[in-house]
Amino acid sequence: MSRIKVGVLGATGMVGQRFVQLLAAHPWFELVALAASDRSVGQSYGDACRWILDTPMPESVRGMVIQPCQPALECRLVFSALPADIAGSVEEAFALTGYVVSSNASSHRCAPDVPLMVPEVNPDHLGLLPLQRQRRGWPGLLVTNPNCSTTHLVLALKPLWEAFGLRRVFVTTMQAVSGAGYPGVPSLDILDNILPYIAGEEEKVEWEPRKLLGRFDGEGVELADLQLSAHCNRVAVTDSHVECISLELARPASLDQVRDALVSFRALPQELGLPSAPPRPVLVRREPDRPQPRRDRMAGGGMATVVGRLRPCPLMGYKLIVLGHNTVRGAAGGAILNAELLSAQGYLD
Amino acid sequence: MSRIKVGVLGATGMVGQRFVQLLAAHPWFELVALAASDRSVGQSYGDACRWILDTPMPESVRGMVIQPCQPALECRLVFSALPADIAGSVEEAFALTGYVVSSNASSHRCAPDVPLMVPEVNPDHLGLLPLQRQRRGWPGLLVTNPNCSTTHLVLALKPLWEAFGLRRVFVTTMQAVSGAGYPGVPSLDILDNILPYIAGEEEKVEWEPRKLLGRFDGEGVELADLQLSAHCNRVAVTDSHVECISLELARPASLDQVRDALVSFRALPQELGLPSAPPRPVLVRREPDRPQPRRDRMAGGGMATVVGRLRPCPLMGYKLIVLGHNTVRGAAGGAILNAELLSAQGYLD
Amino acid sequence: MSRIKVGVLGATGMVGQRFVQLLAAHPWFELVALAASDRSVGQSYGDACRWILDTPMPESVRGMVIQPCQPALECRLVFSALPADIAGSVEEAFALTGYVVSSNASSHRCAPDVPLMVPEVNPDHLGLLPLQRQRRGWPGLLVTNPNCSTTHLVLALKPLWEAFGLRRVFVTTMQAVSGAGYPGVPSLDILDNILPYIAGEEEKVEWEPRKLLGRFDGEGVELADLQLSAHCNRVAVTDSHVECISLELARPASLDQVRDALVSFRALPQELGLPSAPPRPVLVRREPDRPQPRRDRMAGGGMATVVGRLRPCPLMGYKLIVLGHNTVRGAAGGAILNAELLSAQGYLD
Amino acid sequence: MSRIKVGVLGATGMVGQRFVQLLAAHPWFELVALAASDRSVGQSYGDACRWILDTPMPESVRGMVIQPCQPALECRLVFSALPADIAGSVEEAFALTGYVVSSNASSHRCAPDVPLMVPEVNPDHLGLLPLQRQRRGWPGLLVTNPNCSTTHLVLALKPLWEAFGLRRVFVTTMQAVSGAGYPGVPSLDILDNILPYIAGEEEKVEWEPRKLLGRFDGEGVELADLQLSAHCNRVAVTDSHVECISLELARPASLDQVRDALVSFRALPQELGLPSAPPRPVLVRREPDRPQPRRDRMAGGGMATVVGRLRPCPLMGYKLIVLGHNTVRGAAGGAILNAELLSAQGYLD
Repeated sequence: MSRIKVGVLGATGMVGQRFVQLLAAHPWFELVALAASDRSVGQSYGDACRWILDTPMPESVRGMVIQPCQPALECRLVFSALPADIAGSVEEAFALTGYVVSSNASSHRCAPDVPLMVPEVNPDHLGLLPLQRQRRGWPGLLVTNPNCSTTHLVLALKPLWEAFGLRRVFVTTMQAVSGAGYPGVPSLDILDNILPYIAGEEEKVEWEPRKLLGRFDGEGVELADLQLSAHCNRVAVTDSHVECISLELARPASLDQVRDALVSFRALPQELGLPSAPPRPVLVRREPDRPQPRRDRMAGGGMATVVGRLRPCPLMGYKLIVLGHNTVRGAAGGAILNAELLSAQGYLD
Repeated sequence: MSRIKVGVLGATGMVGQRFVQLLAAHPWFELVALAASDRSVGQSYGDACRWILDTPMPESVRGMVIQPCQPALECRLVFSALPADIAGSVEEAFALTGYVVSSNASSHRCAPDVPLMVPEVNPDHLGLLPLQRQRRGWPGLLVTNPNCSTTHLVLALKPLWEAFGLRRVFVTTMQAVSGAGYPGVPSLDILDNILPYIAGEEEKVEWEPRKLLGRFDGEGVELADLQLSAHCNRVAVTDSHVECISLELARPASLDQVRDALVSFRALPQELGLPSAPPRPVLVRREPDRPQPRRDRMAGGGMATVVGRLRPCPLMGYKLIVLGHNTVRGAAGGAILNAELLSAQGYLD
Repeated sequence: MSRIKVGVLGATGMVGQRFVQLLAAHPWFELVALAASDRSVGQSYGDACRWILDTPMPESVRGMVIQPCQPALECRLVFSALPADIAGSVEEAFALTGYVVSSNASSHRCAPDVPLMVPEVNPDHLGLLPLQRQRRGWPGLLVTNPNCSTTHLVLALKPLWEAFGLRRVFVTTMQAVSGAGYPGVPSLDILDNILPYIAGEEEKVEWEPRKLLGRFDGEGVELADLQLSAHCNRVAVTDSHVECISLELARPASLDQVRDALVSFRALPQELGLPSAPPRPVLVRREPDRPQPRRDRMAGGGMATVVGRLRPCPLMGYKLIVLGHNTVRGAAGGAILNAELLSAQGYLD
Repeated sequence: MSRIKVGVLGATGMVGQRFVQLLAAHPWFELVALAASDRSVGQSYGDACRWILDTPMPESVRGMVIQPCQPALECRLVFSALPADIAGSVEEAFALTGYVVSSNASSHRCAPDVPLMVPEVNPDHLGLLPLQRQRRGWPGLLVTNPNCSTTHLVLALKPLWEAFGLRRVFVTTMQAVSGAGYPGVPSLDILDNILPYIAGEEEKVEWEPRKLLGRFDGEGVELADLQLSAHCNRVAVTDSHVECISLELARPASLDQVRDALVSFRALPQELGLPSAPPRPVLVRREPDRPQPRRDRMAGGGMATVVGRLRPCPLMGYKLIVLGHNTVRGAAGGAILNAELLSAQGYLD
């Protein structure tokens, strides 16, 4: 079977590089098009891109010529790593021209006819796509993945939501600098320091899980009846976010029951054997001091969510720590897994 | 007026050095005795102490000979920077021999007849001291200061407790490595990493504020009716802890009213003009991204608590950030301020 | 005596903020004018400047209105913290209009009629100023201070140059991120990392000391006959540069003689009692592992050079470590000391 | 062919863990014995070892019971990750009982009859082994690998030594904290700081390359006629050392010739296809700012030496940067490659 041709929009940035890294040897997708801003167009990727990841730039992309972010790329699907301020119109232009768009940008996450999706959490939300096509008249289609903190939060919440129901969730994040892109956070702001603020982040973390855990009723997604409160901080870590979570279940459960629900969690991507799906989407560690960023972020190839320190909370009932890679599962890897699900479900035929 | 002679127990450790630094030029106290463990006894402080603070070792202490931690020091008051496992018995031996002991150790914090004190918060708890003397038969006396995270938490809570009452407090800390002493946290555990666990810390933060905000009724302290939940983390910061706080007030108040209560807060140490008391115990910053450790920890000479990002919380009502220096106000400086209050109240006469 | 009115060009940047911090309470200079780029002009300093230093913005400057970098400031002297690409022409325009300019920029450092000066090292180079005026027809005048790494290097070399002569100097620097300004070094480039390259830096460190140690013969400065080789690196330190130095003396000396020459070094700024001059320009530490950035950078208020680990070098004869604050003595503080010398020598009358 | 049974001495420490990690799936060696200090003996490895590497502990070792460091292990070869103070006598006891010992400890590096070996550099020094057996009467044998900084230094020097000869080498290192083991460097010593001193390191770096590049004349190794000078520093990097090198060649060469010598370097391990040998032992990067620790340390699986910034040196002729992983090639991986060479040469038959 020949691979599906794909492109990356915003290919020279931080998340764009992750897409390139993860797609270079993908079994289903063939990376054939790289698009970026005008100042890079026409240059080879090797020349235009200041590669900053910790593995070398794949040789296969070094000579590819960067194209404009316009719907004239010779591929079936595009991954969007565009900045939020331009992603909206560019992605729509691609969908309007027949491309399948898997976006990491925040522009369309709140649109009622755009699936905001984590394949283990709400694959049924793909049911929005026929409505999307109908309403927008697009021959193509558009799906998005959530914010990096939201992604790992909902992966940890989903098994509990299913098993016990959730009422309230309290989360304080300690987020890696790579989440701000490159150049992103100045080193003078983060060495021996903490930034107790990330613009727009708390709003996303308090809203997106409600759509992800919401019920698709054939016509739209009803936001989940769930209260969230978030404090978001930037800390001196290169990759992966840590989230301190307290939560209140709708139905009482013992700590062992909660742990079992997390440990035994499997979902559609695991059943379908999607190439980027980790064997176990949620890993539970029992050491008192895990998960930790440097030691746990590559769990499941950066695609797993790692949970630890499950214990009672005097206010909410349960405390736990959640950790996950912010630019793999939390960005490029999440969008690729979404595309794999689209493919497995026939949306790329 | 001649200064009061004081000594430091555990003078070579991290907190011991802070005591030495802060006492070297103190207007009321004269540092005349340094005591440490057996392996240092008999050596000069300059030789025995691997000085690790960021200002030079005061010349005046360099030649002082280290004595054993036994109640034979020629001074009126001792500050205890002893580790918790030995502090208990040593401090009692000193109190039993007539010394006034101002302790930073956790050993006696829970004792019903020992004031756990922050002078701006509960100076009336000194009323426990006559009971302490009576019950224990000590010619001396013993007061303690709380855990470093608790100290700044209660300094921020106290004005709200007074003005509006408090029901529930949620706190996630990001704590500096200096809180673990020296050598303390291995660098391999904290570079590009977070430790989402500090042994015993969450229990202290969830309990100590209830004693500090508790009511002294002439016979004892009734724990405050207040629910707390804490997540405590170690991060790559040298000094000062950051605390992300959500809280529920007993009586509704606008954000402006809350801010005003914090800004206008003054207490007994400010009235008495205690030498180590900051002019304003709580500073409120209005920038979106403050307070930050490196830029705010020395506010009020490291004795102030800095509050920022006051905003609504969807779950609790109010969110804010609290920052404070963990080894100045949160340890040595706090114990010194306690001693200053004892002096001003006549307990050192 | 009334203070001399001064201004700062480029007042909102990293070094500009240091100037403001150090000048806010200066005994000789009164800071009356702040100038910056067009996008800040007309705003108050408090609004326009994202203050990033670790002490609060001085209250006295918060309301000052930012002016354009044009020679219409009501002051006698301007400190230039302008970027190199525009400093050249702007500084000349000020000198041409009669201002005394003390520059931290690199633009004029190589000009034969501009003193490149560290007051302890080559105060006699002020003799270039009459030639400068004559040649350029300026009513004002212009002096510069060297690169931050050069400054501390020559402060350590000067006593040895005087006492024993120098043939060859080998230096490897580990430089703080503040040297790159703000936003400067991206955190993703420096966390758990080293940048083994700083554009243009090695060339400066290999050339500037030769001018600073050069002989002024009444007509110009003859470059010192001294060979230097530099490796310059950026490391995860906020402030202060460390330099590993090996050197060959022209005349043999014992390690004790070398140490004595460094320890006993005093120069004109100390004799004149210039306000920013540290009592001892070079401090020598004898611990095996000092100097260290966080613990030694504020020596002499950030104006001293700290030397340590003096020991034999198998190739050159002598090894030592040099440390100094890069934005205090190495930038703003150095330019202020230059201005103090100008004042003491009558150039500001 | 069945794999050769091997054990690890000092298996719970930092380098011991690297051995375990690298041996868990080794094609030639089967890890069957783990030995450590008395306080771990009898416990399972999973219980006794606080695993601190960034990949999970291999499942295969978790249940292995830790044995004493005595020559009663059921294996043919032992890797020694013992601390220097006990390595000497323990390793000799193993060699005396017939074991082949591949040591990472410094104890025997200077012994005239013990090969100090990097397989790409001096494989002919294995010729010392018959002499070793004869002189010591050991049925077993002992080889060592050099200090981590030396390893990468000589890998970069060897091609130049062969092609052009070397007279003098100047090196300043910036070394990762993992080189000090665990707990090793306290975080308070390295956050926002540099330690300009590593006990004993400069002596090793100045001497070991002379043995490694020395000539084996059938009876012993004649130290290479080469002068070295080293400055060694500890910096806030988790893994990999950076070395700034200036060197003087014996015979003049152009920069291109020097680069070609490095790029084209291959040696016996590559010819023999030893499993841990990187395809290219020395990688040369041409970007102005590489190599960098986080981005280049895993080159060749952590077994390659990465060179960059080749350029002229005013004093010595040539400057370059060398980077390599300190606990892979610089410690455990180096000792494993030594053992692979022993095996390929028939010493394990």
